[in-house]
Amino acid sequence: MKKRVAVLAGDGIGKEVTNAATAVLDAIGRRFHHEFEWVHGVLGGAALDQAGHPIPEETIRKCEESDAILLGAIGGPKWDHYPKELRPEKGLLQLRKHFELSVNLRPVQAYKTLLASSPLKEEVAEGVDLVFVRELTGGLYFGEPSYHTDEEAVDTLVYKREEIERVVRFAFEMAQQRRKKVSSVDKANVLESSRLWRKIVEEIAAEYPDVEYEHMLVDSTAMKLITSPASFDVIVTENMFGDILSDEASVICGSLGMLPSASLRADGFGLYEPVHGSAPDIAGQNKANPLGAILSGAMMLRTAFGMTQEADAIEEAVKKVLEDGFSTGEFKSLGGKVLTTTEMTEKVINEIESEL
Amino acid sequence: MKKRVAVLAGDGIGKEVTNAATAVLDAIGRRFHHEFEWVHGVLGGAALDQAGHPIPEETIRKCEESDAILLGAIGGPKWDHYPKELRPEKGLLQLRKHFELSVNLRPVQAYKTLLASSPLKEEVAEGVDLVFVRELTGGLYFGEPSYHTDEEAVDTLVYKREEIERVVRFAFEMAQQRRKKVSSVDKANVLESSRLWRKIVEEIAAEYPDVEYEHMLVDSTAMKLITSPASFDVIVTENMFGDILSDEASVICGSLGMLPSASLRADGFGLYEPVHGSAPDIAGQNKANPLGAILSGAMMLRTAFGMTQEADAIEEAVKKVLEDGFSTGEFKSLGGKVLTTTEMTEKVINEIESEL
Ligand SMILES: CC(C)[C@H](C(=O)O)[C@@H](O)C(=O)O
Ligand SMILES: CC(C)[C@H](C(=O)O)[C@@H](O)C(=O)O
Repeated sequence: MKKRVAVLAGDGIGKEVTNAATAVLDAIGRRFHHEFEWVHGVLGGAALDQAGHPIPEETIRKCEESDAILLGAIGGPKWDHYPKELRPEKGLLQLRKHFELSVNLRPVQAYKTLLASSPLKEEVAEGVDLVFVRELTGGLYFGEPSYHTDEEAVDTLVYKREEIERVVRFAFEMAQQRRKKVSSVDKANVLESSRLWRKIVEEIAAEYPDVEYEHMLVDSTAMKLITSPASFDVIVTENMFGDILSDEASVICGSLGMLPSASLRADGFGLYEPVHGSAPDIAGQNKANPLGAILSGAMMLRTAFGMTQEADAIEEAVKKVLEDGFSTGEFKSLGGKVLTTTEMTEKVINEIESEL
Repeated sequence: MKKRVAVLAGDGIGKEVTNAATAVLDAIGRRFHHEFEWVHGVLGGAALDQAGHPIPEETIRKCEESDAILLGAIGGPKWDHYPKELRPEKGLLQLRKHFELSVNLRPVQAYKTLLASSPLKEEVAEGVDLVFVRELTGGLYFGEPSYHTDEEAVDTLVYKREEIERVVRFAFEMAQQRRKKVSSVDKANVLESSRLWRKIVEEIAAEYPDVEYEHMLVDSTAMKLITSPASFDVIVTENMFGDILSDEASVICGSLGMLPSASLRADGFGLYEPVHGSAPDIAGQNKANPLGAILSGAMMLRTAFGMTQEADAIEEAVKKVLEDGFSTGEFKSLGGKVLTTTEMTEKVINEIESEL
């Protein structure tokens, strides 16, 4: 197959990790006879510096002309004092809205060799294999009115039935491919939007009798993610709760640097990015963990292009490298073999090529 | 001193734990020559059963005629399917609103002997001593419009300057009595209300040059509470974020059952309650951990009545009992001496009396 991918490196370590991901995907291309065309565009602070806007028209056009988007990371102290319409984050939010990327997937998996660096006891973190299905283009993030004066501020949490239906249905479909359990998270004892959410979950659950489901309150979920994370399979929730809980859960596996994500439109078009931020403090030092970006590449292959075997090959290569005791700087204390960004990328590529 | 306290046991284990707290406070009364008058009122499910409303007029009157309110816990499956205006939680929310209990304090402390039962590694949880200062009568919990139809739902996050000022000022005052550090949590990269919040924090911080402060995003805070909880001193945030994060942090010390809270009006009048819920599964079995309620009693003495020595006496008694290896059922796996609710209460009372 021939696929065109828009690569938005963004800021900080974004460039290093997207370079790593495209190098690995090129290796997959060689092994499985695909051709990937990389179309580079600017986003976030880099776009502000170059074009005066966090998401220039040209970047949007490049994404529209591509089969998928691969993103690095955005933001940094340099742009923190820009007016809010010009903040790097605004570029990301506009990208999500423009392409209607309403379903955000964030898998969290505990890797055995990294457990020692989890803040959780190993027996608590062991076996964690869950995925967040977060609504990404509704709720408090985009509701109107939204303003502040010097005296008062208002944000609005709005959901339309179809927005909730879409993401909830996605979660149930996904659960059918996994351990068949959905935990729907809301705050139905306080919020009206949660009451509609809960109602819709029950309607949709009725269509998936093979999937077990439960309603959980967001506050108890914040506890249970720490006390028994391995009990979760698919967690579905609205935008803001998903933001908080998925970041909370991301520490389970010992480093944010490991985690991939996908943000999808109803027709399957999507954006793939590591969960970590732009980490300006280590940018340009060849220290960043490229595995989050590389695993995002695997999600892209599987979800956007239906390349299951190819995605498996990346995920197995990553597992193998970790099992061989290699990791990047943030796992230094584990006493394994610490690699640079490019060395780690090479190791993964070698694994992929060794199966030629 | 003579003090009148409204005791709202509520539902489930509420009765057992408020009984424990009043028994301990009576012991304090004997030792320090105070007299506590306990005025019992119904709230939540118990009030629904008895008076058809989650917070009857009579309960409000009893609270108005008292110097403080001591609450057990509310709710249970029995009332889950009541219409929302009659849910037990509504009673609690109305109580907070009626008495303008706008500042919620939730200290979280790691007790050495209980560390082994924390889901966090002991070296991560060790030394945690933080307090949440949560805004309790604003934001998404009470903003209008708030409704749902079958097609759409709206909740509104509103804050007035004075609501933010009050809670933020409280946090800085509190930090001056502690380790002089405030972490203010918001989502200023997305929410307008957070931008006003951040602005007000900066204004107020300028009045407390001896207190160090930082702005943190709610998603990164959810991570940092797990990766380095001991780095926090005072955490101040809005209502919904406070709900989620304080519950998350509550697991650090190994059990919700240990944690007290206070909800205060501007003039110091307040409601004191353990953080745990009504735990209907163990209600009436003399198994519940009474220490959260007992420590809430200590907070009441210190905050409502200025009885510092008396509060210290309770807290020291609790520490002593724990150090002697005693605990309640949820800590069974630690292999210590497991006590019933009444036995644990007796132990604490004995400690208090032994200092006579
Ligand atoms: C950068 C920010 C706007 C964004 C969000 O809140 O959605 C980020 O935290 C995320 O989770 O992707
Ligand atoms: C019972 C519920 C309404 C309440 C809240 O969300 O405030 C509870 O979770 C709490 O934190 O006291």
